[in-house]
Amino acid sequence: MVTHITEEIPRSVWYGWGDPARAKPLGPGALDFLRRTLKLKGVAGDHPPVTMADVRVGPSALDAATLNELAAITGPDHVATDATTRILHAGGKSTPDLIRRRSGDALEAPEAVVFPAGAEEVRSILALCVERNLAVVTFGGGTSVVGGVEPVRGRFNAVITLDMRRMDRLLHVDPLARTATFEAGIRGPAIEAALAPHGLTLGHFPQSHQEASLGGYLATRSAGQASTGYGRSNDLVKQVHLETPAGPFDAGSPAPGSAAGPKLLDVVVGSEGTLGVITSATLKVVPVPQAKVYGAWSFPSFEAGAEAMRKLRQDGARGDMPHVCRLSDTDETASTFKLGGAKTAALQRYLRVRGQKRPAMALFVWEGSERAGRAGKRRSARIMRAAGGISLGPLPGKSWEHGRFSGPYLRDELLTRGVYVETLETAATWGKVASTYAAVRSAILAALGEKGAAAFVQTHISHVYSDGASLYFTFLSGLEEDGLAQNARVKAAASEAIVAAGATITHHHAVGIDHAPYMEAEIGALGIQVLAGIKGVLDPHGIMNPGKLIPAPPTNPKEAP
Amino acid sequence: MVTHITEEIPRSVWYGWGDPARAKPLGPGALDFLRRTLKLKGVAGDHPPVTMADVRVGPSALDAATLNELAAITGPDHVATDATTRILHAGGKSTPDLIRRRSGDALEAPEAVVFPAGAEEVRSILALCVERNLAVVTFGGGTSVVGGVEPVRGRFNAVITLDMRRMDRLLHVDPLARTATFEAGIRGPAIEAALAPHGLTLGHFPQSHQEASLGGYLATRSAGQASTGYGRSNDLVKQVHLETPAGPFDAGSPAPGSAAGPKLLDVVVGSEGTLGVITSATLKVVPVPQAKVYGAWSFPSFEAGAEAMRKLRQDGARGDMPHVCRLSDTDETASTFKLGGAKTAALQRYLRVRGQKRPAMALFVWEGSERAGRAGKRRSARIMRAAGGISLGPLPGKSWEHGRFSGPYLRDELLTRGVYVETLETAATWGKVASTYAAVRSAILAALGEKGAAAFVQTHISHVYSDGASLYFTFLSGLEEDGLAQNARVKAAASEAIVAAGATITHHHAVGIDHAPYMEAEIGALGIQVLAGIKGVLDPHGIMNPGKLIPAPPTNPKEAP
Repeated sequence: MVTHITEEIPRSVWYGWGDPARAKPLGPGALDFLRRTLKLKGVAGDHPPVTMADVRVGPSALDAATLNELAAITGPDHVATDATTRILHAGGKSTPDLIRRRSGDALEAPEAVVFPAGAEEVRSILALCVERNLAVVTFGGGTSVVGGVEPVRGRFNAVITLDMRRMDRLLHVDPLARTATFEAGIRGPAIEAALAPHGLTLGHFPQSHQEASLGGYLATRSAGQASTGYGRSNDLVKQVHLETPAGPFDAGSPAPGSAAGPKLLDVVVGSEGTLGVITSATLKVVPVPQAKVYGAWSFPSFEAGAEAMRKLRQDGARGDMPHVCRLSDTDETASTFKLGGAKTAALQRYLRVRGQKRPAMALFVWEGSERAGRAGKRRSARIMRAAGGISLGPLPGKSWEHGRFSGPYLRDELLTRGVYVETLETAATWGKVASTYAAVRSAILAALGEKGAAAFVQTHISHVYSDGASLYFTFLSGLEEDGLAQNARVKAAASEAIVAAGATITHHHAVGIDHAPYMEAEIGALGIQVLAGIKGVLDPHGIMNPGKLIPAPPTNPKEAP
Repeated sequence: MVTHITEEIPRSVWYGWGDPARAKPLGPGALDFLRRTLKLKGVAGDHPPVTMADVRVGPSALDAATLNELAAITGPDHVATDATTRILHAGGKSTPDLIRRRSGDALEAPEAVVFPAGAEEVRSILALCVERNLAVVTFGGGTSVVGGVEPVRGRFNAVITLDMRRMDRLLHVDPLARTATFEAGIRGPAIEAALAPHGLTLGHFPQSHQEASLGGYLATRSAGQASTGYGRSNDLVKQVHLETPAGPFDAGSPAPGSAAGPKLLDVVVGSEGTLGVITSATLKVVPVPQAKVYGAWSFPSFEAGAEAMRKLRQDGARGDMPHVCRLSDTDETASTFKLGGAKTAALQRYLRVRGQKRPAMALFVWEGSERAGRAGKRRSARIMRAAGGISLGPLPGKSWEHGRFSGPYLRDELLTRGVYVETLETAATWGKVASTYAAVRSAILAALGEKGAAAFVQTHISHVYSDGASLYFTFLSGLEEDGLAQNARVKAAASEAIVAAGATITHHHAVGIDHAPYMEAEIGALGIQVLAGIKGVLDPHGIMNPGKLIPAPPTNPKEAP
């Protein structure tokens, strides 16, 4: 079966997130909150992006012969060198990416953007790139927030970007094994649209869902908002077809539970485009849940809530764990309440009467049968109450779900209003969640406040594991004149705090360029050499996504050109 | 916390399994079944192993200087070159291993056996082995049935075996994260004995449990009998410390859910001693279950039972899946009934009345709270009944559990009685379970019957996944004069049938020497090159467990000496 998903994928706006028509403007309450919390004189929209015509983009270093050869592979309609297309592929969606592009800087844009239609075309393109010494960046949804799709030219003659949007088909469904095989360029909503007629879902809903591609999910080991229930992308994937400069590579076994040596699938998953191009993949799918049951609890503190999360995961009955499991710290809860306006004011008064002056709110969604969800919620309530939790009913969970993909749009308005905002994430074992939270939070506040500015950090746990939990930090301050320097200062301080705390440098944003300097702390010098050794086999010329994942230059002397 | 586990590990008997005092002899009913089924004239014990004194063992190629250096590292008491110790490390426990040793052939024994006390000693030993060009085999419980611990000397000056038994401590328990860190030489029962005071269990019980070591579990991605519930060794492990010829390597993150690049832990797990020596590991542990709830159902056919397993896994409520989930085919069910004697005769009559003349029996164990187990059993019963299942009550499950570690002892008596017996396993997606079952079974029967002998194959599913299931084949025939040739013939026929069926060459026995020729079919030529590339970084001289996992010579030209 070959089902072509005809959904037209709109190109994300070049200076920000997704389709600006979907953005909801900040209300007066939110603007007031910002002004007061960040002690800003004004938050008027006086920092708009330059117009497209004013964006600087470097000259294309690609010769006509190479362009012709690319066009011979994909057809001339699928090789673009126009400024607009190049600017649209000049990087991902991190705050520094946006600051750069909003200021008119797309000098790092790729020399050409190629839109392959299948694995064979990708194979031919890679062969040509090896021959002509061209670097290759694979671009799915382009939503990386760690520099994962930056067109780094490095020592190569040019850098080209492969935009995977044409490879968007559902290729096969195995209803007995409950697996589905897709081309890797398919986006989140198209995955679900393709599975819906089969009554199936992937259950993978990261915040980037509306933009991100399947290949990107797998290349970054992405975690969805319901991954506590459905598993992360690396848990869902069974097989990956990778086109590498050394040839096609099928990673993963069609059979379950193979013991035939190291699991090479887990070498390809998370490789961030540095080994080859993921062109298709087979993933586990499940029936669309019949029902969703929502719950929310308020805790006297973030620590009390985190302890309830741990007990729920470790002591709850096996099937009772919610699919979505999120806990906001007291600051995030306060800002959620603040933005909720009058609706939440009564709730806050009620919680104050019940002794929770600075509550930490947790949200849950159980998916599956109504009966199982209700039973899970009922039994989980005991653990929540024992930890001091007060039930808030289904509304906060529903409200979160309603707006769950809209967060990234806020950043565009905030930047226009002169507010710096960024996010970063980590994960730690239960014994280190509190200390990691405190250390990273302090590091961010100190770095943002270094020049005397007020700053705000809010944090949540969004993924709960048996051995620990994720921590996701959102932080704001006035945008400094040199926003890139401001960002680098905060990011470095937070990353160093994460490493010192014994937490991981990334829970789901992946490595890209931004975290590459911390990889040695994460996996050791020998680990870096192992990655370089694998790359040396699959990408001996180093053309695939240079500068990402492994700090350059490679530490394995064998791999040097 | 450092808790030394003082359990004395008895050395497994040199010609067979474990401690012969634990073996239960075959009863007259079983002998009669064998005689009739295999059409053997007699099954008297007239094929005993030779005596230890008659075992041929090659001369040690290790010079006195090297022995002295080894002794300087571990102390002289921990380096053995005596014939007995060398014979005890001459290989694993596959049927050809036993046939060879029972005939007095231990010519492949290692030149010396070294018993290191810690990671630092292992590091020094590896450095010395690189210097002196010595091959190194790591030996945990020595229970490999695929040639995983064969002392292959190859192009090296000598081969030494590292027996890990002294490294048997529980090093640390993290009660919040529910993880435990062990030295890798600790055996199955000692793992449980060490965890018991903490109220914890690893939940990992392969048939080899009483003999096998933690390092062996991880080196082979082993699956325990309750892995459907607790997960396989590769699901349980969080971090591994590996000593390699290139230096110490810590694989795996202390934090949960890291997205920092490829998961190198899954490169070390399953590497079968070819990259280095696993010296310690951190694993997830869980509270000892309060209760076990047993169930058994009889199905009209193996296919009907397999369909019930699939539905149970895919359509059952999340927490209802039994931890142990086994389904015997009609032949295995018949032989189980036959060996059960009078106790099961009435049961067989009852099933015949109910229309099941050749039933296929499934066993289940739910572990955890009594309440959850009973609820899981009750709800699962609906799926079983809908598939034509007849409930047999708790006794068959309890009876299986009672004898579950004793199977390997039978082989020793069968070989003495002139009966050839061996096992092999695979796994397939649900759509291919029936065809794989039929093809492999036919291949085994045809190969065993090639010279006109009668043969018997019995099969079970022991591990149920969302996308498929394992298949475990046990087969018997009269032992031919050249038992090794007989074994090679059957093994080759079965392996080729597995590859042709699109199943995996191994579900939990791992690769070793025996499956190495099938690795290219399993992971592709480029996959082999990736493995060789990783080995080239961690073991550049190729001293670690030569001849295992990757077919020799390595296909990566960079790695050639």
